[in-house]
Amino acid sequence: MIVSGLLASVAINFALCIIFFTLYSILRKQPGNYKVYAPRLLAEGIARARRPRSFHLKRLLPTASWIKNAWRPSEEQLLSYSGLDAVVFMRIIIFSFKVFAIAGFIGIFILIPVNCSGNQLQNVDFINITNNTLEVFSISNVNNGSTSLWIHLGAVYFVTIIVCCLLFSEYKYISSKRIDYFCSSEPQPHQYTILVSNIPVSKGSNVGNSVENFFNQNHPSTYLSHVVVHRRSKVWTVINAVKKVFKKIFKVKKVPTQQRFMHDGLLDDSNYFVLHIYYNILIFLFIIIFLISSLLIRKEVRAAFVSFKSRYGAAIALHMLQSNNPTEWRTEQAPEPQDVYWPFFSSTFMRRWISRLVVIVSCAILTILFLIPVFIVQGLTNLAQLEIYFPSLKNILTLSIVSQVITGYLPNLILQMSLKIVPPIMRILSSQQGYVCHSDIERSACHKVIWFTVWNVFFANVLSASALNLLSILLEFKEIPSKLAVYVPAQASFFIAYVVTLGWTSTSSELFRVIPFIGSLICKPFTRNSDDVKVPSFPYHKDIPKILFFGLLGFTYFFLAPLIIPFLLVYFSLAYIIYRNQLLYVYAPKYESGGKFWPIVHDSTIFSLVLMQFIAFGIFKSKKLPYATSVTFPLPVFTLLFNEYCRKRFLPIFMAYSTETLRKKDREDQNLPEMPQLLRQLSAAYQDPALVPESYSSHHDHLREPFIPVAEVRG
Amino acid sequence: MIVSGLLASVAINFALCIIFFTLYSILRKQPGNYKVYAPRLLAEGIARARRPRSFHLKRLLPTASWIKNAWRPSEEQLLSYSGLDAVVFMRIIIFSFKVFAIAGFIGIFILIPVNCSGNQLQNVDFINITNNTLEVFSISNVNNGSTSLWIHLGAVYFVTIIVCCLLFSEYKYISSKRIDYFCSSEPQPHQYTILVSNIPVSKGSNVGNSVENFFNQNHPSTYLSHVVVHRRSKVWTVINAVKKVFKKIFKVKKVPTQQRFMHDGLLDDSNYFVLHIYYNILIFLFIIIFLISSLLIRKEVRAAFVSFKSRYGAAIALHMLQSNNPTEWRTEQAPEPQDVYWPFFSSTFMRRWISRLVVIVSCAILTILFLIPVFIVQGLTNLAQLEIYFPSLKNILTLSIVSQVITGYLPNLILQMSLKIVPPIMRILSSQQGYVCHSDIERSACHKVIWFTVWNVFFANVLSASALNLLSILLEFKEIPSKLAVYVPAQASFFIAYVVTLGWTSTSSELFRVIPFIGSLICKPFTRNSDDVKVPSFPYHKDIPKILFFGLLGFTYFFLAPLIIPFLLVYFSLAYIIYRNQLLYVYAPKYESGGKFWPIVHDSTIFSLVLMQFIAFGIFKSKKLPYATSVTFPLPVFTLLFNEYCRKRFLPIFMAYSTETLRKKDREDQNLPEMPQLLRQLSAAYQDPALVPESYSSHHDHLREPFIPVAEVRG
Repeated sequence: MIVSGLLASVAINFALCIIFFTLYSILRKQPGNYKVYAPRLLAEGIARARRPRSFHLKRLLPTASWIKNAWRPSEEQLLSYSGLDAVVFMRIIIFSFKVFAIAGFIGIFILIPVNCSGNQLQNVDFINITNNTLEVFSISNVNNGSTSLWIHLGAVYFVTIIVCCLLFSEYKYISSKRIDYFCSSEPQPHQYTILVSNIPVSKGSNVGNSVENFFNQNHPSTYLSHVVVHRRSKVWTVINAVKKVFKKIFKVKKVPTQQRFMHDGLLDDSNYFVLHIYYNILIFLFIIIFLISSLLIRKEVRAAFVSFKSRYGAAIALHMLQSNNPTEWRTEQAPEPQDVYWPFFSSTFMRRWISRLVVIVSCAILTILFLIPVFIVQGLTNLAQLEIYFPSLKNILTLSIVSQVITGYLPNLILQMSLKIVPPIMRILSSQQGYVCHSDIERSACHKVIWFTVWNVFFANVLSASALNLLSILLEFKEIPSKLAVYVPAQASFFIAYVVTLGWTSTSSELFRVIPFIGSLICKPFTRNSDDVKVPSFPYHKDIPKILFFGLLGFTYFFLAPLIIPFLLVYFSLAYIIYRNQLLYVYAPKYESGGKFWPIVHDSTIFSLVLMQFIAFGIFKSKKLPYATSVTFPLPVFTLLFNEYCRKRFLPIFMAYSTETLRKKDREDQNLPEMPQLLRQLSAAYQDPALVPESYSSHHDHLREPFIPVAEVRG
Repeated sequence: MIVSGLLASVAINFALCIIFFTLYSILRKQPGNYKVYAPRLLAEGIARARRPRSFHLKRLLPTASWIKNAWRPSEEQLLSYSGLDAVVFMRIIIFSFKVFAIAGFIGIFILIPVNCSGNQLQNVDFINITNNTLEVFSISNVNNGSTSLWIHLGAVYFVTIIVCCLLFSEYKYISSKRIDYFCSSEPQPHQYTILVSNIPVSKGSNVGNSVENFFNQNHPSTYLSHVVVHRRSKVWTVINAVKKVFKKIFKVKKVPTQQRFMHDGLLDDSNYFVLHIYYNILIFLFIIIFLISSLLIRKEVRAAFVSFKSRYGAAIALHMLQSNNPTEWRTEQAPEPQDVYWPFFSSTFMRRWISRLVVIVSCAILTILFLIPVFIVQGLTNLAQLEIYFPSLKNILTLSIVSQVITGYLPNLILQMSLKIVPPIMRILSSQQGYVCHSDIERSACHKVIWFTVWNVFFANVLSASALNLLSILLEFKEIPSKLAVYVPAQASFFIAYVVTLGWTSTSSELFRVIPFIGSLICKPFTRNSDDVKVPSFPYHKDIPKILFFGLLGFTYFFLAPLIIPFLLVYFSLAYIIYRNQLLYVYAPKYESGGKFWPIVHDSTIFSLVLMQFIAFGIFKSKKLPYATSVTFPLPVFTLLFNEYCRKRFLPIFMAYSTETLRKKDREDQNLPEMPQLLRQLSAAYQDPALVPESYSSHHDHLREPFIPVAEVRG
């Protein structure tokens, strides 16, 4: 990519960010947009109360007060308002910022002067240098065999040590937070419940009896009750659809007559009265049909929610092997009631396992197919190639502005567009993998999106070979470090453009919420004053991989081409303030995984570190500094050992709560007045979807003393 | 290797086997050799009772009655007499025999005729064929692109399916045996006990109080008692040495005077009396010193055996995460009292982990160093090379008998000798890995020996390249199948010689017990009539890898050069009868792991299958049969999926007993009259090594209704 192309890209994206910020700071103050920019407050009835009564000119001026408001809440307040997952998410950003502030300092003030003092590139080809001015700042410019490469090695060592220390303290902090959060939580149904699947049923018995017998026999002192899961039949789906239609009609009915006229102008009062009677009769009939059919069509599934008298009792049943056949009586932690994902309850052990395998294969296929847009993108950055394939474009391409936009901005835009569809696809794939709750699905999707991005954006772009070549390069893994050493620095400007496009602009558009905003503009005429506010939940599987991938870019480039770091730091600052704002006003937590996203972050940071070290290994080898090459070798070994230690030290905390904690919590809650009530209602918490009303009760009532960021909506 | 060399090797080994068999059948009948050939019966006092009173000529004639006697006992009887591990060991042999009977049938009656009908080798070089007559029977002789290769592919498919079915049924059988064995076992201390290590001790407290508080608080209803482990100090070692000397002297004292005279002729009655008094005074003094010092020098270690009131209670404490810091309060299943390996009790979590890593690195180094003898061996099979290095030997080497012995027998003898030292070394390495019981050490050593053998005997011999070349071949793993396809068939005759040397002769020498026999001959003059019979325990870590490696040879060669199979079948038959004999008369079980060796067998069989499939893949590729190549591809995928399923279906059974089983067993034992007694004595079972007498009580008193193979010793 030519430098002017990069500058064009930075300019376009900077302008877009400014536009988004300005528009947001104006539009968010309009009461009509509360639904888009503060749906959470609206749903909680706070925004409505504070709706301005009269019109002020201030409402039309862009202000930055929202930044102050998003900055203000402490971590404790965020925890109480949005749960531990939100806090963990914010800590990923803070962690990245800390790391790259240090790495950036080293890169800009130590490595760049060293790089500039070299003259390797001038020796090679002086003509090409004008097109690659950026490379003067990169490690490519350091002379082969120069001792100043030891400074780079020192930087790699220093950053590795710093990152490991930060990772350790962060893991420690988050695991203590996780335990504290559990200890301070109210008693909740899922803490007392496990999900048992693949229940064997003897002839002449049913699932309920099987469960009753088994747990009475094997867990007599702790077993409390159970709910057998039922399969929804096709009839139920039809009834559900009818119910939905009714709901719609009911809503119309509730709208005052005058407005209905405005709507369609079809019904007058007498018509309406007749229709009303019909409605009521129909509803009555359907309710009867529904009740009868729901009794007839329910079919037991070999799975049940089993509740226990204490958290410890549930944990015992969860962790012990129940049966002599490990594929029967399989236990899992029950998800929170609002987090349950029903389709896989009826699956056998084998079906869930095969689903898993099929999904993994599909993921691999998707990854390979996705190389096509990546190669189109790579083709664009290489204008000469484009001219060969489309000779008719030659005249247009010679215009400098066009070529700048095409090489600088367009490739990243295409990549961004195609990457947008990946998280939803991965989520769909993960949902077919046999998980029984949304949080597991999102975590699994998060994993998939990370590896997808690393493979398709990093490796495919860097090595920019055809799919099969890429595979053959990776199969000869002796050669990988030196290949990376050649190709990675060459792509620095492409990834700077990537950071400004997918980092800056995409995050600003997250603030502006482009699609929901357009959606609300279109729907506005039809849904005026409706109470129906849909509060979205935070798409962790989309945003965590994004941040982690920028981390990977930072790690691999900080010593190769440190110029990328300032762009990254701007991105992390933007992300900090914008995501905080969104977590406070837009998204409501749908579930609480208790910080289980952190191990993913830890693992992928370790991966980035090791990748960085491998590239350093290759660089020193190709720069003909054999001593430095061998000195690099212990780094990945110790990083992986450190990772292994962390897995032993912290990971079990994220898998299960300890006896110590469970016992303490059980003792504390023993004398709570509401406990008998809660235990009685446990079986009602996991109602069969065939019998339960569609929407579940409010889902964040378990959060402690909610902090409410009301101060701001007044505008 | 030339064919005559192979024949020489077979002849030598066959002769050796006959000699060993004859000698054994005579020597075992001499009462003086009972110590060598029936130490177990001797220790149990059965052989002595049946010692022949007068001399019969029959005692000097070789008979085969021992074969009948070894054949006769049923599996049930073997189980009750030698434990489940012995049964599992015998089933490995039976399993291998079954598999290779089928594979051999296919190989000999279908594949060899097909191979012989080809003329690939004649096309290439007719002169060389005389030296490689064996290759006519191998797949190398099938013409390139010949459709008869589909028969080989069919054979590979058929054997894979058969082996998977057999593996599944065997895994199922052994896991049910394991559960049955547990259910029918007497209550034993280790079932009620767990080992807790890395106990945190607060200031001003001690380990005992910590344990007491923690378990009283967290397991109030099941916790029974605990024994804190103490570190043996150097003083204790000295005292122990003194005790040993005493024991020796005591023994001399006990021998009647007359015999003492015969021994050394030094002491008369009066001297003896004075010495006796000295002894007694010294003993008295030492006992006092010992008691005082053992109180002073005991130092608490942060580990304890914690006993529970029920097996289920112990299992809960074992499987639950105890503390919020997973490196503290670590729990493991307590080993059987006689199986405890004390040195690692004082180690911290970190030290045990680092020990593990160091051992793994040492193993890798040992493996690389061992390539030296392997290359010497390979050099011998190549006479021409030898003549170049040692021109002075030229005259001797031209003698045909010498060259036959050198190329046929010597290489395997050297390999055998160097391989003999590997299991003890691996056992020593494993014992430094942080395990707390001998059974774990042996299992870990078993793993190491298998991979060592596969790497150093199979891969190093087949690819017969220098150490670094070997690594570089393995790094380019695209090429591995085709490389194996070229080199593996070429080594067929070497491995046939390997089977007869390390299979036939080594197993026969196991029967003859060469080293113990020589040892007893040397020691006889000094230890006449001593009661001190040392019953050895079965060296699973030495013999299981051997059988598994022959399995690997069988799998890889059955379709390449089926001639090896008959030799293998002879080996398995020999092994069946000889090991049965040894298990009944020689070895006594030192511990009972409950069949935990089987998962190792399963995994390495799967490895052999996949290796076979990869070689098939390479063969079809190099024989230019592209369709067959792609048809082979699904095989390893399905084999690995099958393995994964087995891991899920059966492996958990070998890791832990299920709630179902534990509860059932606890209920059954609840009303046993000896239970209160047993529970009271639990804390005494795991005595501190600093206080316990050296030898533990008889260790197989937990076996049910012992079957005693007495019928035979009469001779």
